[in-house]
Amino acid sequence: MTKHIYIYSPSSAIRDKAAFRRGVKRLKALGHEVEIDEAAQSVHQRFAGDDATRLAAISRAAASGADVALITRGGYGITRILDALPYKALAKAIDKGTEFVGCSDFTALQNALFAKTGATTWSGPVVGEDFGNEDGPDDIMEACFDDLVSGQGEGTGWRMPARDAELKFKPVQDAVLWGGNLCVLTSLLGTPYFPAVEKGVLFLEDTHEHPYRVERMLDQLKLAGVLGRQRAIVFGQFTGIRKVPGYDRGFSMHTVIDRLRASLKVPVLAGLPFGHVPTKVLLPVGAKVSMAAEGRDVFLVWGHRHTSAHDDHHEHGHHHAH
Amino acid sequence: MTKHIYIYSPSSAIRDKAAFRRGVKRLKALGHEVEIDEAAQSVHQRFAGDDATRLAAISRAAASGADVALITRGGYGITRILDALPYKALAKAIDKGTEFVGCSDFTALQNALFAKTGATTWSGPVVGEDFGNEDGPDDIMEACFDDLVSGQGEGTGWRMPARDAELKFKPVQDAVLWGGNLCVLTSLLGTPYFPAVEKGVLFLEDTHEHPYRVERMLDQLKLAGVLGRQRAIVFGQFTGIRKVPGYDRGFSMHTVIDRLRASLKVPVLAGLPFGHVPTKVLLPVGAKVSMAAEGRDVFLVWGHRHTSAHDDHHEHGHHHAH
Repeated sequence: MTKHIYIYSPSSAIRDKAAFRRGVKRLKALGHEVEIDEAAQSVHQRFAGDDATRLAAISRAAASGADVALITRGGYGITRILDALPYKALAKAIDKGTEFVGCSDFTALQNALFAKTGATTWSGPVVGEDFGNEDGPDDIMEACFDDLVSGQGEGTGWRMPARDAELKFKPVQDAVLWGGNLCVLTSLLGTPYFPAVEKGVLFLEDTHEHPYRVERMLDQLKLAGVLGRQRAIVFGQFTGIRKVPGYDRGFSMHTVIDRLRASLKVPVLAGLPFGHVPTKVLLPVGAKVSMAAEGRDVFLVWGHRHTSAHDDHHEHGHHHAH
Repeated sequence: MTKHIYIYSPSSAIRDKAAFRRGVKRLKALGHEVEIDEAAQSVHQRFAGDDATRLAAISRAAASGADVALITRGGYGITRILDALPYKALAKAIDKGTEFVGCSDFTALQNALFAKTGATTWSGPVVGEDFGNEDGPDDIMEACFDDLVSGQGEGTGWRMPARDAELKFKPVQDAVLWGGNLCVLTSLLGTPYFPAVEKGVLFLEDTHEHPYRVERMLDQLKLAGVLGRQRAIVFGQFTGIRKVPGYDRGFSMHTVIDRLRASLKVPVLAGLPFGHVPTKVLLPVGAKVSMAAEGRDVFLVWGHRHTSAHDDHHEHGHHHAH
């Protein structure tokens, strides 16, 4: 199914130009009509153009009428322009059917937009690292993306780690899914751009953050009351961790998760295939979801955003990632 | 002047034992009576003992009746125990004359204690890296410490960077001095432990944080309204920055400071000799200060905490660090 895909750069400048080119080529090979924003390859310091350039690119993405707006990459740049983002234009574009997809630094736009307008965006792949992955795009990622563009996705699932085989939690219904990159999300706390979600499902991932820094951010969210008012916390992938041999002495993401569980009544799930990893599912930030488990298998289900567009959803939409 | 100095470990386990021993030796050589907490050299994971052990150590420091309570080192550990710190006992000890000194992770205790009780602590040296510095303790640091233990310190001063030669700001009077490590302070934002200081002088330092991360934290504090309600923001030393050649392209602490100045009416000063550097002055977190400049020379003045203890302060207390 040919879709109109708009590619733009709201954050850092492209570093891996080959990956970017591979990603564009792959999206075209999938049959899509790919439109590249005029400033997608701009460079200003470490940014994909100065703040005004990137804001204009985001506005063009909102005005593009595309089916999907994809970012070239994450990095850093959106928190600088939170006060100037075209929130209304983005919400209007989403209402008209443009799906905004991204991750990492994009977490700031997603959660700020949800806080300001209630609009739903997708945590998911970027053009360079994902579609342009040098080992080829990940199958599950592409299947989830295909679900999105074909309007057939209705949920996702994964298997919890073996160490959590005994974990039980009450099924969650009608809860707002939100979150993304822990560091970027935490950098919104205390500002008007942090979503005031009660009884939601909060998912988190991060990369190149030592577990002590992850723990400090989790404690901040906990002490701010954010974690305690959710229905569930879901850990995605925490990658790029450099342990300090002879010093960490057993302090790890496992101890961080175990300590969080001990201090929180809210269930803490792990193993979500999302983060700075090739195998990433797409997750609708701001959508209502249900979540339940059968043994170690978790099912996260959301409704159709555009219910009029399809009626054959029963056959589709569960790309279970183990 | 012999003082009773109590040494304890509220945060990370000692890694550099030789530096710790040198620091203790140096404090004794200065004529002080040094008491080492029983758990000062404890190890649990990366911490100087588990949470209960470190909390007990902090309580013993508060009960010690010492003139000065010094931490062995910073690191990580205090944000884990913010809900359980002995705030009242610390405030009572300070009221009775014990001066609590530290930096880095200690920023969390200092600002939380000020938020909860209004008590004043000192941002300043630690035993290991400072008194036990392998090149010998820094002269200015020791002179400032001597001011504290002799009760004769009444302020400090420094020269602003040449690039700020034209910077003008209105003298500040009767403003609360607060702050410390930017990363640790920001990790309190949104929690009950972040001080609600209006019209204060906020000083900040950090180490091994890329300028983009520094900027993101400053933006968070700005968007939360914290920076805009201060009388002045004072930058200490930002050290250990690894630039990314061919990528940062001019993005640096200078651009971070310049952008902050452009977006804020509050004066932003630089050059404060404080941070993860040998030459660090002592700064009373929670005290009322005045600040003014003559050309590039800034004078930061606080009152005596114990006015009855000395009457010869006119001859002392300005260790101007250039």
